[in-house]
Amino acid sequence: MQTSIEKLMDRLSQAESAVQADGALITSDRNRFYFTGFPSSAGALLVFRDTAYFMTDFRYAEAAGKSIQGCQVICYSSLKETLAQLLKKHGAKRILLESEKMYLQESRTLTGILASAGAEAVLDDTLDTIIIDLRTIKTPEEIQKIRESQKITDDAFSYILGRIAPGRTEREIALEIEFFMRRQGAEGVAFDLIVVSGANGSMCHGVPSSKVIEKGDFITMDTGALLHGYHSDMTRTVAVGEVSEEQRHVYELVLKAQEAALKTAGPGVPCGDVDKAARDLIEAEYKGAFEHSTGHGVGVEIHEWPRFQKGNIQKAEPGMVVTVEPGIYLPGKFGVRIEDMIAITESGIENLTHSPKELIIL
Amino acid sequence: MQTSIEKLMDRLSQAESAVQADGALITSDRNRFYFTGFPSSAGALLVFRDTAYFMTDFRYAEAAGKSIQGCQVICYSSLKETLAQLLKKHGAKRILLESEKMYLQESRTLTGILASAGAEAVLDDTLDTIIIDLRTIKTPEEIQKIRESQKITDDAFSYILGRIAPGRTEREIALEIEFFMRRQGAEGVAFDLIVVSGANGSMCHGVPSSKVIEKGDFITMDTGALLHGYHSDMTRTVAVGEVSEEQRHVYELVLKAQEAALKTAGPGVPCGDVDKAARDLIEAEYKGAFEHSTGHGVGVEIHEWPRFQKGNIQKAEPGMVVTVEPGIYLPGKFGVRIEDMIAITESGIENLTHSPKELIIL
Repeated sequence: MQTSIEKLMDRLSQAESAVQADGALITSDRNRFYFTGFPSSAGALLVFRDTAYFMTDFRYAEAAGKSIQGCQVICYSSLKETLAQLLKKHGAKRILLESEKMYLQESRTLTGILASAGAEAVLDDTLDTIIIDLRTIKTPEEIQKIRESQKITDDAFSYILGRIAPGRTEREIALEIEFFMRRQGAEGVAFDLIVVSGANGSMCHGVPSSKVIEKGDFITMDTGALLHGYHSDMTRTVAVGEVSEEQRHVYELVLKAQEAALKTAGPGVPCGDVDKAARDLIEAEYKGAFEHSTGHGVGVEIHEWPRFQKGNIQKAEPGMVVTVEPGIYLPGKFGVRIEDMIAITESGIENLTHSPKELIIL
Repeated sequence: MQTSIEKLMDRLSQAESAVQADGALITSDRNRFYFTGFPSSAGALLVFRDTAYFMTDFRYAEAAGKSIQGCQVICYSSLKETLAQLLKKHGAKRILLESEKMYLQESRTLTGILASAGAEAVLDDTLDTIIIDLRTIKTPEEIQKIRESQKITDDAFSYILGRIAPGRTEREIALEIEFFMRRQGAEGVAFDLIVVSGANGSMCHGVPSSKVIEKGDFITMDTGALLHGYHSDMTRTVAVGEVSEEQRHVYELVLKAQEAALKTAGPGVPCGDVDKAARDLIEAEYKGAFEHSTGHGVGVEIHEWPRFQKGNIQKAEPGMVVTVEPGIYLPGKFGVRIEDMIAITESGIENLTHSPKELIIL
């Protein structure tokens, strides 16, 4: 199995004929972590066609040396000098840099360092495009990390069900979920957790408030953990005390839409088709009540590629990890969203989420 | 009292003669929040000499309109179109953009939007320099927010003292401090909390580990809360069970150094002098054991300006909020750091930290 650095080396060789670059310099936190598996707040990864160097400072060098496979770890006192030396040693003339997560000021500094070593910085989106391609297809090891992250999210849901009751606030519930995840070993939450109840449930990006949970409320909880640098993401909507006929109907419709999307997803299927499977069912009854996309990739960032989005012709491929999360939002009344996270496999999908989806009335 | 937006307008007028810019576009999350007091993940603030616009999307527009004073809130469906319309309306030809926190890809998009409206993007560090100047001097309202944030940090210290005991791990202590802060209403912690004990204490940026606290350990806790968008920062070192003579001596020396720095700090004093006051005392006995700076500004980011740093000739001014945090780190043995956060006043300093500093043996 090729490492992500080896895959990048291959791409560099392929790209070389087109862009004539001798190497790539990875500087953003997330991409440094993606390629090395080593979290650090300072450093840079320099990848040539057949060699790679991870440069970092004294705080990280020892641990990086023990942890990172397949590239030489160098401790620098001056990144500028170390980088210039390596560029000269390899006779590098053109180096690809990141663009999306590269600050303008940083790009100027790096361009200057490269120039001082006689090399030119390539600042178009060549490197970003290569990295997006790589990151979109997860390795089995990455999927295992996401599975473990989702396990904490599933466990948190099971835990919180026993602690939701009339009189408690959205914010209390959100904090308890977060604390549970942290106690289970999560490095953090995958994003600001969403816990919205009653009429607040129609805000798909609502912030947990001091609103008290009441009998008859739907509570939508969009939660996820960060574990070993990998994110998870799940939404469940549960009811307290009782539900109206309308609530039950909307819940069942969202569930039907979500199951239709799950049934559609698989290798070779255009991402837009997965969105359409859910959207068509909802729009037939509740036009305009489902405005966001059906899903997004998940990995070392919470929002990755691909998107299960209207009209997206990109085909799903084995190794993609994507959410499936249709919803219905009725302003002033309530909202329902049901979200699983799936991995596309050779033969279909693996649902990484194991929490129940039948309507739970607490 | 001028608002920060009005201050920026003034600076634009002053800068205009030099750079001939008609306005400034603030796009980074932190600076959008700094100028508007409104947290959002999308939007841009466009400031002309006498008018300002906050552009954001449907998720934030209503709340922004209610919350932001002194600028017109516009809800866009396309930032590009809204921005182009405003630039044309005001006949803007040159617009300052941020550079330090501007992604390269974003700068290209914005440059394109400006060009489509017949305006040129100024991408040097003019705007960053103006904003740093403004942010370095806090308003009384900002200092009050930092005071309230520090109150949570002080309360967390008092709380955790009763919960530190042999057998507990660094990570457990760190989590309990964090959970306490969150329960008190903090939006989050100000940074990844540092709790290091025994020999781990010599790592000034150590990560809380599963190491168990033992009798005779020093425990250094570098903690801070995030409240109303403002950070706080405090370090205390406490002992468990007993201390050696060396531990006591080092503790008293760090405290003496910290008090010397506090005594030195005040309006008109070069920042380097504050550093020197602490450093000279420590270096006389423990050369090389105090390698970091004595302090940094704190505000809407945890590390701001000015720096109490060796040789820094910048003079302290009323409204600056800065940490004072000397330490002694003895690899393989232990470490001590004592940190308060102060505001420079017209007549001296206000210490925003109220936790005790005499050696506590639990």
